[in-house]
Amino acid sequence: MSATDDAAPSDQQSLTPEQEMLNWGRLLLDGVPFADLIGARDRPKGMSWLNYWLGRSKEYEELANKAFSEGHHLSAGEYFYLGTLAAQYGQFLWFGPERGVAQQRKAALYRQAAPLLDPPAHEADLVIDGVPVRAYVRTPNRPAPHPAVIMLGGLESTKEESRHMEDLVLARGMATVTFDGPGQGETFDSRALAGDFERFTSAVVDYLTDRDDIDAAAIGVLGRSLGGNYALKSAACDDRIAACVSWGGFSDMDSWEAETPMTKESWRYVSKVETLDEARDHVQKATETRHVLGKLRCPTYILHGALDEVPLSFVDTVRNHVTNAPLTIVVENEGDHCCHNLGLRPRLAMADWIHDQLVK
Amino acid sequence: MSATDDAAPSDQQSLTPEQEMLNWGRLLLDGVPFADLIGARDRPKGMSWLNYWLGRSKEYEELANKAFSEGHHLSAGEYFYLGTLAAQYGQFLWFGPERGVAQQRKAALYRQAAPLLDPPAHEADLVIDGVPVRAYVRTPNRPAPHPAVIMLGGLESTKEESRHMEDLVLARGMATVTFDGPGQGETFDSRALAGDFERFTSAVVDYLTDRDDIDAAAIGVLGRSLGGNYALKSAACDDRIAACVSWGGFSDMDSWEAETPMTKESWRYVSKVETLDEARDHVQKATETRHVLGKLRCPTYILHGALDEVPLSFVDTVRNHVTNAPLTIVVENEGDHCCHNLGLRPRLAMADWIHDQLVK
Repeated sequence: MSATDDAAPSDQQSLTPEQEMLNWGRLLLDGVPFADLIGARDRPKGMSWLNYWLGRSKEYEELANKAFSEGHHLSAGEYFYLGTLAAQYGQFLWFGPERGVAQQRKAALYRQAAPLLDPPAHEADLVIDGVPVRAYVRTPNRPAPHPAVIMLGGLESTKEESRHMEDLVLARGMATVTFDGPGQGETFDSRALAGDFERFTSAVVDYLTDRDDIDAAAIGVLGRSLGGNYALKSAACDDRIAACVSWGGFSDMDSWEAETPMTKESWRYVSKVETLDEARDHVQKATETRHVLGKLRCPTYILHGALDEVPLSFVDTVRNHVTNAPLTIVVENEGDHCCHNLGLRPRLAMADWIHDQLVK
Repeated sequence: MSATDDAAPSDQQSLTPEQEMLNWGRLLLDGVPFADLIGARDRPKGMSWLNYWLGRSKEYEELANKAFSEGHHLSAGEYFYLGTLAAQYGQFLWFGPERGVAQQRKAALYRQAAPLLDPPAHEADLVIDGVPVRAYVRTPNRPAPHPAVIMLGGLESTKEESRHMEDLVLARGMATVTFDGPGQGETFDSRALAGDFERFTSAVVDYLTDRDDIDAAAIGVLGRSLGGNYALKSAACDDRIAACVSWGGFSDMDSWEAETPMTKESWRYVSKVETLDEARDHVQKATETRHVLGKLRCPTYILHGALDEVPLSFVDTVRNHVTNAPLTIVVENEGDHCCHNLGLRPRLAMADWIHDQLVK
């Protein structure tokens, strides 16, 4: 099987679990080394996907500790981050009982990477709705106050995954903030996906507006996949949000049947329900945004790949419902879900667009 | 054909031209997008390798000009650089008459990228042996004077190709310098490969010691592939060089017969001779270093991949001849030529090692 066979399958529904997990475009752009993807594809018969990645993660942790002990802090940060990514992508579509262990490992390794990144990621311990929520804030190497972009993860994305997109935002003079909302990462144990993500986003906006180093008038959201759905609803429901990017997002889950097999299983998992029928009903209700899109008033950027399993009719829905906000709609004819197959270009375009909205 | 088939062939001599050109590990780590490699592999029947990459290069140039006109200078720099890489890897093992056009295009696009990189690359126009030699200097975001690393390209590498390795060096507090020596890039028209590369390196050292912002006592060389051979000879012949990294280098070309077909053709091309027999004789003479290795006195780092077509006996030769310099020898059992198949790890190790030699 070749790399492209995995990257751009012609029939989403026929994907094997292996094909869904081995998403070359996404994993490479998020920072997973090519050599590790080759290793995953060609791993010994009988070694599970999860165990392969936990092994890689362990090796990177050892390299990180060695580099740190030698005073090579930048390299230690790289290795802790590579260990984080390995643990993340080991468990992101894994539904066995070991998932929780890999999830904890990812969070723990990122905590070690965070102060060693350039610029570093600083922890902020919030409590939202009685739930402890750890956020990470990175600020650009410029005089404060900074514009800020809240990065919203998706169905199996967490606050540890977006470093390279954060770097593009930071290089353009904006701070970044990541956190896990309901159904995600470290918040999953306390809260399932429930259709109230926007309340968590607003609590993070509260936190940011209290910080002296953040420009409260220049806070944006940028959400990927399900995070692109959350971004639309968060910006519609909180008029302090000054710019919104929906990156491979959607307005509703009317197209549930087009979702790939592992993605459906993932929806079931984060909803904490037993059956796919229950998941469908729960998810359709939780991801519905059409009733609030008319409230969206800030400049909004929609990136949609025409080869996404989310149908192009999503763009019609946006045009029909987002009637009070300036819209920039980019449809990539060759793009898959989130346009991961198109390389850096769509990411640069989003970073430049949100720069133009928030940086004066 | 899968990515690994290209990346780690079991029999070097059986490589097709396509397999030699589609060196996944090298191209990805140098910054070529995965999507472009897939595009190259799956390009339309009848489209040449060179024309595919010239097309990509043109598209990136258009994106760069558009980004620049919109005030998005960082993205413009990225696109000019992606255009540079596309032109570089279109022609690097292409021996048709169009090669010169692609070479000029690469140099021209990099000149546009240079001031937009972070940190920028500043041109320095030197004249060495009556030959105009354009060098690029990048300095880290720290107070001067800076340690400096002269990056030496190899058989078909040029001063435009090493940006991502430069970034690792810069992040660790050292300036970088690149230039084209005999047989390389813009210097090729004036001078073929001739066994006198070290004189060009020394002229660059002259230039650097005259600069107020460079610490003349902390100048190193880091050369890749044939550049690793040049690094050894340059450091042996100029005692102002304080540290030497030979990255996938060699001490001699006794193992000429093990070279891959396109590499032999490349040796012939840069030697400006007619036949492979002439090339062998010329190259063996020009790359011989054993008679000078005893003069090497600065700390020296050897990175060698056990799967390189350069035999492991190279390491014996180094041990036997480099008797007056502190040696750090790293043999990677799974590494191919320059260990391109191992991802970032060997590059981080080299960057950290030279940091430890030059940054006090």
